[in-house]
Amino acid sequence: MTVSATQEKAAAKPSRAKRAKSSHEDPLVVADLQTTIGYKLRRAQLLVFQDFIESFNRLKLRPAEFSVLSLIAAQPGQKQTEIAEKLGIKRANFVALMDGLEARGLAERRKAIGDKRSHSLHLTEEGTTFVRKMTQVWRAHEQRLVERLGGEKERDQLITLLDRILTSDEPG
Amino acid sequence: MTVSATQEKAAAKPSRAKRAKSSHEDPLVVADLQTTIGYKLRRAQLLVFQDFIESFNRLKLRPAEFSVLSLIAAQPGQKQTEIAEKLGIKRANFVALMDGLEARGLAERRKAIGDKRSHSLHLTEEGTTFVRKMTQVWRAHEQRLVERLGGEKERDQLITLLDRILTSDEPG
Repeated sequence: MTVSATQEKAAAKPSRAKRAKSSHEDPLVVADLQTTIGYKLRRAQLLVFQDFIESFNRLKLRPAEFSVLSLIAAQPGQKQTEIAEKLGIKRANFVALMDGLEARGLAERRKAIGDKRSHSLHLTEEGTTFVRKMTQVWRAHEQRLVERLGGEKERDQLITLLDRILTSDEPG
Repeated sequence: MTVSATQEKAAAKPSRAKRAKSSHEDPLVVADLQTTIGYKLRRAQLLVFQDFIESFNRLKLRPAEFSVLSLIAAQPGQKQTEIAEKLGIKRANFVALMDGLEARGLAERRKAIGDKRSHSLHLTEEGTTFVRKMTQVWRAHEQRLVERLGGEKERDQLITLLDRILTSDEPG
């Protein structure tokens, strides 16, 4: 261990007396949660999901199911693995989610053309009707959030900032 | 059932033939997840928490524990119920979390003055040292996020927008 490492360790673990003295001299500065990005993101996400879940109470739909149905409806025939990857859902969880949507008769897996090992995903006729209703409920939920934010300009600002967090693989 | 309600039901559940026709005439418009507030919030929150958890791997600290220690350090002596409420953590979960921090020797419950049924929360000496280290790790994590966002101005914009979601009890 080098001298500077020893000093660093001594500085990090001062004796009881020194610690008491240093905490007197050097006031404890801590994170202000009110301006901490992760804390605020989590609180806002929980509140938005709560509104979502209450809005979809009658349709019995969870946020991840909403996302999957929206992606299938937007582009029928996508592979199971593609949609799971887009949404960042683990394979086992995605399979369970699709099982649920199939059991409800909303979506179905079909053997993908040219690749019998993989499945392409489609809405059933009932699923198409369901997606129309679900999208109406979502629109009202989203509109409430846009009003809270102060308008569509603010919604766009928020999405832009969240995209910056999401798309920079390298910080700086 | 009124006539208009009957019509509404008929419109929501058209016959097979009508449905096929209507889905031909009336293209399915669905939510674009890329501009959906809840979806983007969740993805960003998961990414930020993943960075947080990796940053705190060595200190073995979860985000909720970080928040609790920060609040105790900022104002020692607050009651257990106050801190749980500020953070929106359920009583049972909060008790388990505090048990963990006590077992690690970082924080302690003391009988609150004037109210022997409630507990006030304090850092131990070891906890104070830990909070100094933890705050340094947090600062580096937060700085990475600020750089991703493009600067402190953008961080402030993001916090302002998230606060609008969080503080308006009434939409509009």
